Amino acid sequence: MSVLVVGSIAFDTVETPFGKVEGALGGSATFFSCAASLFTDIRLVGVIGRDFPEERLKIFSERGIDTAGLQIVDGDTFNWTGRYEGDMSQAETVEVNLNVFGTFDPILPDSYRDSEFVFLANGAPALQLKVLDQVQKPKLIVCDTMNLWIDTALDDLKALLRRVDGIILNDGEARMLTGQDNLVVAGRAIREMGPTFVVIKKGEHGGLAIVGDDIISLPAYPLPVVKDPTGAGDSFAGGFMGYLAEAGAIDAAAMKKAIAYGTVTASFTVEDFSLDRLHNVTREELDGRLAEFSELLTIR
Amino acid sequence: MSVLVVGSIAFDTVETPFGKVEGALGGSATFFSCAASLFTDIRLVGVIGRDFPEERLKIFSERGIDTAGLQIVDGDTFNWTGRYEGDMSQAETVEVNLNVFGTFDPILPDSYRDSEFVFLANGAPALQLKVLDQVQKPKLIVCDTMNLWIDTALDDLKALLRRVDGIILNDGEARMLTGQDNLVVAGRAIREMGPTFVVIKKGEHGGLAIVGDDIISLPAYPLPVVKDPTGAGDSFAGGFMGYLAEAGAIDAAAMKKAIAYGTVTASFTVEDFSLDRLHNVTREELDGRLAEFSELLTIR
Repeated sequence: MSVLVVGSIAFDTVETPFGKVEGALGGSATFFSCAASLFTDIRLVGVIGRDFPEERLKIFSERGIDTAGLQIVDGDTFNWTGRYEGDMSQAETVEVNLNVFGTFDPILPDSYRDSEFVFLANGAPALQLKVLDQVQKPKLIVCDTMNLWIDTALDDLKALLRRVDGIILNDGEARMLTGQDNLVVAGRAIREMGPTFVVIKKGEHGGLAIVGDDIISLPAYPLPVVKDPTGAGDSFAGGFMGYLAEAGAIDAAAMKKAIAYGTVTASFTVEDFSLDRLHNVTREELDGRLAEFSELLTIR
Repeated sequence: MSVLVVGSIAFDTVETPFGKVEGALGGSATFFSCAASLFTDIRLVGVIGRDFPEERLKIFSERGIDTAGLQIVDGDTFNWTGRYEGDMSQAETVEVNLNVFGTFDPILPDSYRDSEFVFLANGAPALQLKVLDQVQKPKLIVCDTMNLWIDTALDDLKALLRRVDGIILNDGEARMLTGQDNLVVAGRAIREMGPTFVVIKKGEHGGLAIVGDDIISLPAYPLPVVKDPTGAGDSFAGGFMGYLAEAGAIDAAAMKKAIAYGTVTASFTVEDFSLDRLHNVTREELDGRLAEFSELLTIR
């Protein structure tokens, strides 16, 4: 089954202790769709400006990503400049220009309306809700969010949470949204706001999920080199949703495997800058690393 | 095979968001030996003052812990007052009185000298080295350490590292000792200082180990209630060493299972204050939780 994703497409300038890239292709929808397209067909909704070089759209077409929902409008593409230091667990935003993404109005082409798997990447909850009004009969809706919306659009976010099946967010956001320090408690509190399942990303420490009464906890895939964490969260979400759509299952066992796939997908992303590694990963490599990860976690 | 442990015995006064205990039995050797005695026979080396009520020694005798190496000397027992706030990942020391532990001279009774499994709980590296001079032919020596010794006794610590098989330390200490932010890299750097294996504890995020060329990474056992993290690290070490001594094995597969046992042992400790939960855990409960933990990590 295909996956619909709505989110940002951006040019990223990123500096880490391992180097720097300027104007690299990024954005939540970009990382998500590159990751999820390792599993299934992707329908992309996003916006870029006139400055976006047509040849850079190849990254989507080469991966069979449907760009019927990609708007090209007057103005410049969203761009972000960030820096990571020390253990690289936090991005420091140096500069951000929303440009055309600031007035983004997500319109779904008719061909997208029957989408069964929907991922609402980080964005204003009002826009995320607007997307939901345009899909007919989704089987699984998952959203991301961020501290900004918890701070400035909490009512919209709560309305959104009542309409999604799942949410993927990071540990700091989960604590902020609930006021709970213990992540199991925080995850359960978010479930009570509406979603059936809650996936809490912990960066280098892996992920924790509350799926109904089940608790799932997996570490990250251990890596000696993390060059650039940008896009890790969206790659995780892409691997997670991609696997669920491919499997056509949403039970707790499938969720656990989906989290494992999300984890290994993200592990490739952070091995190099921007999309440099993720774009070249094969499904065979992904499955190989999943098998290694599974073995790593097997206690005999 | 029995395990020799050298470390502190203390009275702890601890306040967390879940309550407070005053003068509870604590100390690294106490938590370690209570945990490890779930697996095998323990030989304890430590010091207490004349203020130590004889009836409180029952906690050791009830568990079959050999206290031939326990010194009772003039003065008061070591005591520590600490506080945990927020996510409770860091203890704040409010007051510390080393008392008799400040002049502790670890002397092994003759009956301990043939110990094959040796755990040197956190203490001055010079004292830890002194213990090693008194054991005849140990099969496995593992030490703990802390930021204080990295700061003030680095040469002794380095001399110690050349003589141990393994070290268990936390993520902050591993980064401090090596100057490396990536924990896989930090663990490998510590291995180059001498130990065959390095176990890095990450509190609520579980543990990472470098065992020869293998990397082991396991999450914590997810708990909705953590009342008091005091003793978690020493309980982890106790479960870890206890299992290895019981199994009589030190290969990578045994190490992984030992880390899993350490993880679930510590998970009981933090469910209540001081030794309140750990002291009542049965081996059946421990094995039950290990089976749950193993199932939690199985990806199908």
